[in-house]
Amino acid sequence: MTIYDISEKAGVSIATVSRVLNGSANVSEETRQRVLDVIEKYEYTPNAFARGLGLNTMRTIGIMCADSSDLYLAKAIYYLERQLRENDYRCILCCSGYELDTRRESLDLLLQQKVDGIILVGSNYIYGQAAQNKYILDAALTTPIMLLNGALDAPNVYSVLCDDYTSVQEATGRMIASGIHDILYFYNSDSYSGKRKRSGYLNAMETHGLEPMQEFFAGNHEDISGMTEQLLRLHQNGQAFHGLIAADDTLALAAVKYAQTLGMQIPDDLSVIGYNNSILAQCCHPELTSIDNKLEALCQHLTDTLMDVLTDNYGIKNTMFSGDLILRGTTKAL
Amino acid sequence: MTIYDISEKAGVSIATVSRVLNGSANVSEETRQRVLDVIEKYEYTPNAFARGLGLNTMRTIGIMCADSSDLYLAKAIYYLERQLRENDYRCILCCSGYELDTRRESLDLLLQQKVDGIILVGSNYIYGQAAQNKYILDAALTTPIMLLNGALDAPNVYSVLCDDYTSVQEATGRMIASGIHDILYFYNSDSYSGKRKRSGYLNAMETHGLEPMQEFFAGNHEDISGMTEQLLRLHQNGQAFHGLIAADDTLALAAVKYAQTLGMQIPDDLSVIGYNNSILAQCCHPELTSIDNKLEALCQHLTDTLMDVLTDNYGIKNTMFSGDLILRGTTKAL
Repeated sequence: MTIYDISEKAGVSIATVSRVLNGSANVSEETRQRVLDVIEKYEYTPNAFARGLGLNTMRTIGIMCADSSDLYLAKAIYYLERQLRENDYRCILCCSGYELDTRRESLDLLLQQKVDGIILVGSNYIYGQAAQNKYILDAALTTPIMLLNGALDAPNVYSVLCDDYTSVQEATGRMIASGIHDILYFYNSDSYSGKRKRSGYLNAMETHGLEPMQEFFAGNHEDISGMTEQLLRLHQNGQAFHGLIAADDTLALAAVKYAQTLGMQIPDDLSVIGYNNSILAQCCHPELTSIDNKLEALCQHLTDTLMDVLTDNYGIKNTMFSGDLILRGTTKAL
Repeated sequence: MTIYDISEKAGVSIATVSRVLNGSANVSEETRQRVLDVIEKYEYTPNAFARGLGLNTMRTIGIMCADSSDLYLAKAIYYLERQLRENDYRCILCCSGYELDTRRESLDLLLQQKVDGIILVGSNYIYGQAAQNKYILDAALTTPIMLLNGALDAPNVYSVLCDDYTSVQEATGRMIASGIHDILYFYNSDSYSGKRKRSGYLNAMETHGLEPMQEFFAGNHEDISGMTEQLLRLHQNGQAFHGLIAADDTLALAAVKYAQTLGMQIPDDLSVIGYNNSILAQCCHPELTSIDNKLEALCQHLTDTLMDVLTDNYGIKNTMFSGDLILRGTTKAL
């Protein structure tokens, strides 16, 4: 049963049902009672409604991610869970996998648990085709939906993003300014955020009249050996590059190993920039220059926005943070 | 309401309630009906009961871990979620933190969701004092509890472990056999598994008549710089060692950085063995020799056991797997 069913059964508009649930004064007492009767008759008290009616909630937030073993997603879950706990909310996590079917199922499961809000972690939740995002819009009819690193313009959907486009564009521009013109872009995802990163690279190369070089890795996101071998094959085929921008720190680590295998000096023979500024950036020698996408700040802002929405039914719809280039040993000084 | 309350209200023993729920034939029809009446009257249908009565379940398993950003725990959750999904079960994850209070709360939350079983991931769930484990025993009265890398001898509690003791003992013995006698043990946890690892090291040193050296790191589990600095302080204070066994790969990576800072050659001047065989083991140069604790196999066995318990009310109580030493560049050949 959705808000549509209630409006139909009560014979009033959706906007009226919404006003009743939000306790607005612009509803006649008779209409108000009619809507509440329908809700009571059908025992329909999901939490978004319960909140409007002042009923108790379970104070739980559902978190969905594709794969909790991904370093970036795991870290986001860690921050969100801690911040929600500070606000006296518990969290329930569903690992949805990457398929649309299992995503729909996972979201349904969270809605059944009557959570107060749902956070979709990771940019891979938003598809290019509107029909594929319908299950998210449906969920938003009753429960606020927060997107971390995704964007979708819809009622009751809120987005917090890192400006991946500008981050990669500026990092590429900086590498060009250090005198390197043959820069390879190495990536492994064409998610919403993946596309934006790649556009940033392409724009910087184009602006400087340079030929872009792109290499896509289709294997497992932890297979650093496989990534290294793919780069070595490029070398065997005569493709030379003295700079490499990676869409993820694992791909950048593969570039460091590639240079070690070929006896190239970093950063003199090869400059490398990673993405995420994860623990991996500290693991290699020299340590990795990497783009920090301010994950903790993003998560804190998302939690704050969600708390605003749950308290006042109002929150900032879209927020974009700037990334920071953290300079370490794999890039030259300007 | 627990199984105790039902037995009291029905005026029968707990064993009888259990027999009714498991569909045993050794119960008179009159007694059976009395127990079912109590259950129905109090609308008590947690899933363990529902299964016994042939009612539908939600086919969900609750997973609890202390901190989902820990590489090892994140990986375990990833395997478990995938394997449970293959068995047509969904998973709900609660990050419980490391405090007893938030653990109790998280377990309660999962029980309220009427999950079919609960998996506690990580050896830090089992305390030394029995009173602190009571909340787990209480939960086991209605819901099967699976421990990954913990052990607790109690009804309806099942354990799957890696033999951390023997793994570290053998790794230490191997390093001694390669001619290194001054071996430091570097650790950051005194959990159930942490204690077992340390005992393995101590036993190996003692057996060979060598003086043990132990160093505890109290900081954040990802603070590789802090770990490195702590090792450098040992050096400044004149404490020498030519071998290092680490309780985790992050600690071993710090040892590699320590050697790089001092211009020591690995493995000639310093041999290093890590633990977990995580992605970090592939990140440094030379790559890290590390103990593989067979996490995927452990998770698969745990899932299989849980499926047995849910189907037949019977499963293997305790299973211990052997670890494997994965030899890479940070140790000498024998």
